Amino acid sequence: MKPTFMGASTKQGYDIAARSREIVRSLIDEKTKDLTAEEKSIVERIVHSTADPEYADITCMSNDFVLRGLEAVSQGKDILTDISMVKAGINRYTGDVKCYINHEKTIELAGNTEVTRAAAAIEVAASEGFDGVVVIGNAPTALWKVMKMVETGSMNVSAVIGVPVGFVGAAESKKALEGTSIPHLVTQGPKGGTPVAVAAINSLINISKNQ
Amino acid sequence: MKPTFMGASTKQGYDIAARSREIVRSLIDEKTKDLTAEEKSIVERIVHSTADPEYADITCMSNDFVLRGLEAVSQGKDILTDISMVKAGINRYTGDVKCYINHEKTIELAGNTEVTRAAAAIEVAASEGFDGVVVIGNAPTALWKVMKMVETGSMNVSAVIGVPVGFVGAAESKKALEGTSIPHLVTQGPKGGTPVAVAAINSLINISKNQ
Repeated sequence: MKPTFMGASTKQGYDIAARSREIVRSLIDEKTKDLTAEEKSIVERIVHSTADPEYADITCMSNDFVLRGLEAVSQGKDILTDISMVKAGINRYTGDVKCYINHEKTIELAGNTEVTRAAAAIEVAASEGFDGVVVIGNAPTALWKVMKMVETGSMNVSAVIGVPVGFVGAAESKKALEGTSIPHLVTQGPKGGTPVAVAAINSLINISKNQ
Repeated sequence: MKPTFMGASTKQGYDIAARSREIVRSLIDEKTKDLTAEEKSIVERIVHSTADPEYADITCMSNDFVLRGLEAVSQGKDILTDISMVKAGINRYTGDVKCYINHEKTIELAGNTEVTRAAAAIEVAASEGFDGVVVIGNAPTALWKVMKMVETGSMNVSAVIGVPVGFVGAAESKKALEGTSIPHLVTQGPKGGTPVAVAAINSLINISKNQ
């Protein structure tokens, strides 16, 4: 499949994306000057997708995030998303993109316990032998579950894009992820969300295709 | 189907949503004091979904948006989204949620002309007899196409949620929508996006279930 530029697939789409990238660069150039080329490209795509330059201030990656993330994506390892919206935004990956939020085992597990559907879906993914990159765009409870399962050695995770959004629990879950040794990308504070998650993973996929 | 609260489906999810709504209200109460109860509820859900109180400043609805939108949703009319991510976020509607971005006719049309896939998808929807609420979370080109087709009487549109995002063309397309007589919700300026679009339409759907 042909690599694309910022998600564009037609000439008009490409022109819009190219002009947008110019504007994004002019807005965040100073803020991203200490990043590697790959990290800069990821942050640019997040700001392009949200039209919100604040993401250049709050997006933080561990030093090994790009390396480990690219390694996994280049090998075609699985990508796991917390919710269907994130999965729907990842449309040019040659490996599998999985999401168990609507899986019958998830619904059963969330019904029998006090966990959220999003957290239950992570447990189900691990039980199905997931191995790859986790992308959390919505639910802090899913991110906590990933950290716990990695800590107990019950889930194989190459890297985590952890950008849950919200005023309750999101910031805390991302701060905790930053304290782990899991290769990660986070957005500090309450902001984040599905477009940020999708921009980050699509940017990694695109970089891997251009290598 | 049971109406849900801010998208939550388990007790823990409900508790998080309830606490979030308290925080959201405290942040935007002053800004939303002149809105109707329904309009306030829509703006609250947008801020809840983005963790970005600025949306209370930039979200604008025409006076007839809630009335026309609710009317269409209560009658189970079609919902049309510009991209799959928006469709994936609308998961509790009893009517049809349509998206033609990956339809073969759309790919053919975008390949033969200079229009974007998102704009071509709107043309295809109209040719398939669409009648209902349009939800644009991503592509200004799709929003322009909707306005043009309504103007020429070639598309039946009850209301438009027009919140495309980006530094190139998004703000202009939303300003143009505000100048039409189409019942609409927009976010002024470059910001917007799929979570905003999904929050707005899911809020309408939820209000219609609680009526």
